[in-house]
Amino acid sequence: MTPGDITLAALAFALERGQKAALAQALAHLERAPDAAPTLALLDAAWQAPRAEVIGLTGPPGVGKSTLTGALITQYRRQGRRVAVIAVDPSSRRSGGALLGDRVRLGTDPDDTGVFVRSMAARDRLGGLAGLTIAAMVLMRALYDVVLIETVGVGQSETDVASAADTVVFCVQPGSGDSLQFMKAGIVEIPHIVVVTKADMGATASRALTDVEGAIGMTQDEAGWRVPVLALSALHHEGVTALARQLDTRAAFLTTDGRLTRQRHAQAGDWLIDAVRERFGRDGLKRAGSLDLPAGTPPFGMLREILSRLG
Amino acid sequence: MTPGDITLAALAFALERGQKAALAQALAHLERAPDAAPTLALLDAAWQAPRAEVIGLTGPPGVGKSTLTGALITQYRRQGRRVAVIAVDPSSRRSGGALLGDRVRLGTDPDDTGVFVRSMAARDRLGGLAGLTIAAMVLMRALYDVVLIETVGVGQSETDVASAADTVVFCVQPGSGDSLQFMKAGIVEIPHIVVVTKADMGATASRALTDVEGAIGMTQDEAGWRVPVLALSALHHEGVTALARQLDTRAAFLTTDGRLTRQRHAQAGDWLIDAVRERFGRDGLKRAGSLDLPAGTPPFGMLREILSRLG
Repeated sequence: MTPGDITLAALAFALERGQKAALAQALAHLERAPDAAPTLALLDAAWQAPRAEVIGLTGPPGVGKSTLTGALITQYRRQGRRVAVIAVDPSSRRSGGALLGDRVRLGTDPDDTGVFVRSMAARDRLGGLAGLTIAAMVLMRALYDVVLIETVGVGQSETDVASAADTVVFCVQPGSGDSLQFMKAGIVEIPHIVVVTKADMGATASRALTDVEGAIGMTQDEAGWRVPVLALSALHHEGVTALARQLDTRAAFLTTDGRLTRQRHAQAGDWLIDAVRERFGRDGLKRAGSLDLPAGTPPFGMLREILSRLG
Repeated sequence: MTPGDITLAALAFALERGQKAALAQALAHLERAPDAAPTLALLDAAWQAPRAEVIGLTGPPGVGKSTLTGALITQYRRQGRRVAVIAVDPSSRRSGGALLGDRVRLGTDPDDTGVFVRSMAARDRLGGLAGLTIAAMVLMRALYDVVLIETVGVGQSETDVASAADTVVFCVQPGSGDSLQFMKAGIVEIPHIVVVTKADMGATASRALTDVEGAIGMTQDEAGWRVPVLALSALHHEGVTALARQLDTRAAFLTTDGRLTRQRHAQAGDWLIDAVRERFGRDGLKRAGSLDLPAGTPPFGMLREILSRLG
């Protein structure tokens, strides 16, 4: 396919026939020419045809996010759902990317046409989500049943993922106190679901569960969602089914009363502002004028219009 | 003083006579008109007359950074050194600034003309250091003997402080694991000095000391500095003198072989790039052309030149 041929319908058709390379090619094109008119048109089309629920997995390094991602892939594949994964890779300031090697590789079956895994570089050394990550998510959201975004697990990405995911799952491991401190202090956003990982650790894990419930238990967000706390062992696939059930409950909650539509519209508006700021700075935001996105409008076409005015 | 009258000499003269309000006024002016020609000229003058060593205090919320800042002020005042403090205040995304109230107030004597404390808002909810914070630091650096920057204690500020301070002190408390994880993973920059706080906690504190030494002990940075690990109790003023001694050792190390000059020059170059990006985005960085700062050149005048070209 040449860039001009990459339409949403062509991609869906290729993926149905197991040709994952078509999506890889589209993503490569997206990275090469993020501001090109065909790219933005493709993204607008994808924006208007969302299919997957988008789940962000966050938590400090070493907490077991990759293992949990792997367990969720298995879980969803058993249910016959097709899964796309974005693994955000940190770039170490010191070593310039060596962390990539440390990441526990997802042991997915390369022949399974229902799983697509893509590593993407973080925006900066702090692991923030790049605009490109969000664009890739939008594309995958139109083509799969579930999109998982696994973050780096530091400040910036913890918050950024809320601007891309429908549901944020925060992983905490037994015996870690700092993460809870951040949450209690209100510095890190309260996630939608908290998971205590490595629950095979026995007494420590159940104490961690009690601690987390004490810190954020009964927390209810502005939309009226109560944050559940679960313990699991992804390694032994214990508690993963319970988490998937909670995620289904969450998905059902979001589709009630137009909550999901409103949340995604707000995310699109934030993406547009970030995209303009990244390209043209504070000065550009001022020159661009109002960036209010009318309800139902995808953000990419509007960026194109702004690019042609300010570029 | 009217803005045009604010010269470095006038400020130094006022502060010698105990008129701290003069500096407060200059900082207010800096916040109001950061890009004005007199502001940038004042900052250039301050840049060229550094006097203080600049110490950044980082570490997770609740670790006791404010208590340590207070103890260091006492320590330096006993030595007759004049101290300026920048306390970076987080702005909670949820509550919009309520955290300010949680910050342990520094119990400094308001009549002590040798101490100046200033709270500054973090750039964003993640506690990054704003360009203004760095400008304020440059001014204080020319007017005091020691400048302390106390950060919020989350991802962004942990790293940002390295772009402003000569020496970064990282505080860790007994029993906290995540912070060490970040460091081990290379996601958070290795600080210049590590302090285990709340060392009155006995066995836990000495275990923490051993843990930290195990994790980063014998670490040596590119400049050849070996990171010392100290335990202290700021509350009981135990170990604070030892920390001050380590900071003196560090200061002596930096002034050898032009290290401090090189480090500050690199920081100035980074500040300039950030300043242009913040104002004009990626597009502006491209239009600005080379931002290489010739050795010995302060960055503020160069920003003024770029502002007049791109603005």
